[in-house]
Amino acid sequence: MVGIPVGRLDTPVLVADLDLVEANLARMAAFFTGKPAKFRPHFKNHRVLALALRQIQAGAIGIACSRLWQVERLARAGIRSILLTNEIVGENPLRRLAELSREATVLAAVDNAKVVDDMARIARDARTPLNVVVDIDLGLKRCGVLPGEAASALALRAVADGLRFRGIMGYEGHLQLLPPGAEKARAVKQALEALVGSKNLIEHLGIPVEIVSCGGTGDYAISGTYPGVTENQAGSFLLMDTGYAPFAPDFQPTLSVLATVVSKTERERIVVDAGVKAISGERGLPSVKGIGGLRLRALHAEHAPIDLIDPCAPVEVGDKIELAVSYHDGTVHLHQQMYGVRKGIVEQVFTIEH
Amino acid sequence: MVGIPVGRLDTPVLVADLDLVEANLARMAAFFTGKPAKFRPHFKNHRVLALALRQIQAGAIGIACSRLWQVERLARAGIRSILLTNEIVGENPLRRLAELSREATVLAAVDNAKVVDDMARIARDARTPLNVVVDIDLGLKRCGVLPGEAASALALRAVADGLRFRGIMGYEGHLQLLPPGAEKARAVKQALEALVGSKNLIEHLGIPVEIVSCGGTGDYAISGTYPGVTENQAGSFLLMDTGYAPFAPDFQPTLSVLATVVSKTERERIVVDAGVKAISGERGLPSVKGIGGLRLRALHAEHAPIDLIDPCAPVEVGDKIELAVSYHDGTVHLHQQMYGVRKGIVEQVFTIEH
Repeated sequence: MVGIPVGRLDTPVLVADLDLVEANLARMAAFFTGKPAKFRPHFKNHRVLALALRQIQAGAIGIACSRLWQVERLARAGIRSILLTNEIVGENPLRRLAELSREATVLAAVDNAKVVDDMARIARDARTPLNVVVDIDLGLKRCGVLPGEAASALALRAVADGLRFRGIMGYEGHLQLLPPGAEKARAVKQALEALVGSKNLIEHLGIPVEIVSCGGTGDYAISGTYPGVTENQAGSFLLMDTGYAPFAPDFQPTLSVLATVVSKTERERIVVDAGVKAISGERGLPSVKGIGGLRLRALHAEHAPIDLIDPCAPVEVGDKIELAVSYHDGTVHLHQQMYGVRKGIVEQVFTIEH
Repeated sequence: MVGIPVGRLDTPVLVADLDLVEANLARMAAFFTGKPAKFRPHFKNHRVLALALRQIQAGAIGIACSRLWQVERLARAGIRSILLTNEIVGENPLRRLAELSREATVLAAVDNAKVVDDMARIARDARTPLNVVVDIDLGLKRCGVLPGEAASALALRAVADGLRFRGIMGYEGHLQLLPPGAEKARAVKQALEALVGSKNLIEHLGIPVEIVSCGGTGDYAISGTYPGVTENQAGSFLLMDTGYAPFAPDFQPTLSVLATVVSKTERERIVVDAGVKAISGERGLPSVKGIGGLRLRALHAEHAPIDLIDPCAPVEVGDKIELAVSYHDGTVHLHQQMYGVRKGIVEQVFTIEH
């Protein structure tokens, strides 16, 4: 497929504009150049090993990911420092974590004392040191212990159990989609104060805190320069989408799903061959790119009906149209490949890991 | 994995209760036994070749599907009659259709005169007869020509072009989710009157109409007995989901996503390791099965936070819980495998085609 015009691809197909992907990466890399904090981009968003490797080449100190199988793929691809930001529990998954910890430095998020004990036992059994970071809830109300005493108690337990305590992490996800401005900066700094305060508390116990990981695409410039923070976990910045872009205007949406007009039996409606199995509507409907007067009415399972607000809009059966991805983190995994396109020509076919 | 208790599977994982799947299939098969109309279940919902073959063994006259690649898999699996319900357009896809038409009888839906002409040209080039059914809009306002003159004109064109015109289809999808009762029956019959009226009009032109295909899980008992209808395309009945079940009470939801409680750092909240990448929220949030007092708050990308309405609900980190699938047609394709379970034991691992 390399070298053909994008319009000749069979649809529905996921397409990324490589000029924009590279500009997004360059912008993030330039920001962290020379700063105390570094970037450790998240793999869960794009799931493409070649892109993770490009991020390392651009200066990332490692990769963050959300699943054990992602750790495996990243380790095999040669990534040497991998932060598993989602808690792993249970005998089999923890044993797998120990196996993978022989292939790369895997930093596993923990927020539970019993899991810490289990990990320590498995590390001893497997004779493999396990690296942990204590996950701290910065107000998202999802995973993570509360800042302060709870965080330092869990760090102490990890050390006492014989695990390699490496530091702490938090994800202020509830603040990413605030509009840019002073109010957002204030809220993010307040959240990070709790994170860095926990670091100080743990260090007062005599336990070194090497890693303080946090941040997303929507606040990287604030979280990435907050004193005490050592790394930023942003992932969305690379591919970006139209839903996130207003809250992270430094990065441009790169993704579209190319679809074919398969039906036009009424003057005011077309139907394309992409539905919820090809593009996410979980955070709002996608929009039609590049042609005025077209409004996506709904996402069905296998189709999307599109209303022609302008009944003279020049679209006919057989035409290919681009739907701008509004929620990339719910769309990329729907596909097996992503087509990297430059100036309309397919330059690279990326395998999306599953 | 066969033979192990379902609770030992790594999560998140898609699980189907085989007793219920078989009961759903038996019910649909029994309904069509001895009736003039037959059933041709849709593959798009489950994407499992082994289940399509079981449907054939249970009396299905063939399989319906939505994509060319599905035609390919079904043909290779030995299915001899395949109805492609979604319009296919464009040179490459139509050439592929011609190739696949050598492997099985493929009935392709058409609703456009130019596409009919293209198909006829390609059929001649490839020296392969192509079978078409004219798709008729029964009020869903998606694909399909209008009933009556437009339908008969397209049938005539297909015949004149030298295609094998086999019949007509329509999908009264807008009526599937009406509550069962007299009003639904009236609306479905009115829609089918337009379909069968089109059949009569085409036959008056001297063109035999062998196939009249329509219907879904929500109206199979009405559409499957309407005079003139020859087959029913229902797909959802097999796996079913909690969103559809109230509108199709003859079939039981079979699917859940097994997830692990990975975090419980506050008394009133747990977090499980399944988000929008494992279970669809496109038609409403899933619910927690089998444990009272738990309410799924949201689907994040990789997690779901669950509120404990009953703070004494017996759930702890490491426990596995089942999320009832509320929209199976948006969930199955998120997985590579589906685990068929009977009385808590994994009996069969199904490959989901992609």
